[in-house]
Amino acid sequence: MNFQDKYNIASKKNKFLLCIGLDPDSAKIPKEVPQKDQFFHFSKGVVDATHDLVCAYKPNSAFFESLGSSGIDQLHRLTWYIKEKHPEIPIILDAKRADIGNTNSGYAEFVFDYLGCDGITLHPYLGREALEPFLSRKDKGCIVLCRTSNSGAVEFQDLMVNNIPLYQQVANNVVKSWNKNGNCSLVVGATYPTELKKVRNIVGDMLLLIPGIGAQGGDLEKTIKNGIYRKDNPQIMINVSRSVIYAGTSSDWEEKVRKKAVELKQEIIKYI
Amino acid sequence: MNFQDKYNIASKKNKFLLCIGLDPDSAKIPKEVPQKDQFFHFSKGVVDATHDLVCAYKPNSAFFESLGSSGIDQLHRLTWYIKEKHPEIPIILDAKRADIGNTNSGYAEFVFDYLGCDGITLHPYLGREALEPFLSRKDKGCIVLCRTSNSGAVEFQDLMVNNIPLYQQVANNVVKSWNKNGNCSLVVGATYPTELKKVRNIVGDMLLLIPGIGAQGGDLEKTIKNGIYRKDNPQIMINVSRSVIYAGTSSDWEEKVRKKAVELKQEIIKYI
Repeated sequence: MNFQDKYNIASKKNKFLLCIGLDPDSAKIPKEVPQKDQFFHFSKGVVDATHDLVCAYKPNSAFFESLGSSGIDQLHRLTWYIKEKHPEIPIILDAKRADIGNTNSGYAEFVFDYLGCDGITLHPYLGREALEPFLSRKDKGCIVLCRTSNSGAVEFQDLMVNNIPLYQQVANNVVKSWNKNGNCSLVVGATYPTELKKVRNIVGDMLLLIPGIGAQGGDLEKTIKNGIYRKDNPQIMINVSRSVIYAGTSSDWEEKVRKKAVELKQEIIKYI
Repeated sequence: MNFQDKYNIASKKNKFLLCIGLDPDSAKIPKEVPQKDQFFHFSKGVVDATHDLVCAYKPNSAFFESLGSSGIDQLHRLTWYIKEKHPEIPIILDAKRADIGNTNSGYAEFVFDYLGCDGITLHPYLGREALEPFLSRKDKGCIVLCRTSNSGAVEFQDLMVNNIPLYQQVANNVVKSWNKNGNCSLVVGATYPTELKKVRNIVGDMLLLIPGIGAQGGDLEKTIKNGIYRKDNPQIMINVSRSVIYAGTSSDWEEKVRKKAVELKQEIIKYI
């Protein structure tokens, strides 16, 4: 099943547009989580507590890489755990990769074959030609950075090119010439609701991954209003990481995580 | 010792501006290399054959990642082997990373602390603010993609912003506001010698990493002529990967690798 189909099924089944970001950080993980393979056990706990509430999981490679090969082992255990227990839920590796074509083949093997992920986040700077090893994987989601959620995003992404800001040019190119296999999506930060609306207008019904709700301060109501394609076919994944996964700090942490995810679900339903 | 000092010493000592890219690929590694931990043994063989001929080594993370945690283990063995045997040679991890600040801390730990590398290649798209976890490491080289060597680089990098192409805007910003710790460099492809000249004019004596000679077809003479700052202080690293490391295919492969590197050294000296 391809990435878009998985998203459509999971988001319908769970009536929910929440993507949970799995960003394990030793300084924040409750002390009840076993020390050995801590990142795996913590992330698995989050998955066990929320799998009926999400349209996708998004582990971020950086947090696992910080532990070196042991972190990669734990990431591998995690992705295959999710695939086996919840084959209907798409897994996006937030890896923000992009190199020249020959090299991207190595990254594609890592993310799609070794880890078995369904999608990956990608930088646009090298252009479509370089990303072919990702784009040619028809069943895999290629989620291109368009307008990122950080405050410094303006430095290049708002520069005017051809009378539009660069981020809109990225959206134009992706929708018009990168998406031949129908497997492209875009990342647009919830911290920029006006820009989100503009991107939605450019890309029609393309699926958008929207980080920045929660710790980064994005406004959920505006995000949903400006981000959805249609009420009956929203085509958004609202990513929340820190504010959900670190909702609990003691032995009942998994319940707290679930409670926070359920609250978000109710809020999202209210705004749609 | 910081990245720039290491470069200055290694490039003077070896009278050489060659950076060798360590891009292990099972399909191309000579069959004489042991199968177990093949990527480590092959890369180590290249280092043993060339360490007196280089100003830097540049392992590319993608090739190691393609093997999952075993590849990361081999990369770790490799970087610490180089550090212990040849502490004067800077190691650049070609990883082309960039995420929001909180996440970049994980990548910085992986590259600088776990692997012990001296520098990393970075995407500019998220702006300076996001890259602070790299830029604040004063002793580490932050090598920002400016004009990449691939044919598709034109798609965004040549778009006009503020009456200059985007890649020149990146060079401007890096030299004017990103380089407070004096630890920034830029990547400019040898396949674009005219653009290389423009970047050199913008950045003064900033160190440039120049891939694209060899398999990618860049012209060595033009690259040196257009890329160096001054003959007595060139401030370039010419990266060559495939055409050197796969120069041999049988039991004498290490000699062939050395022979090819020596040839390149003589060519470079001729053109400077």
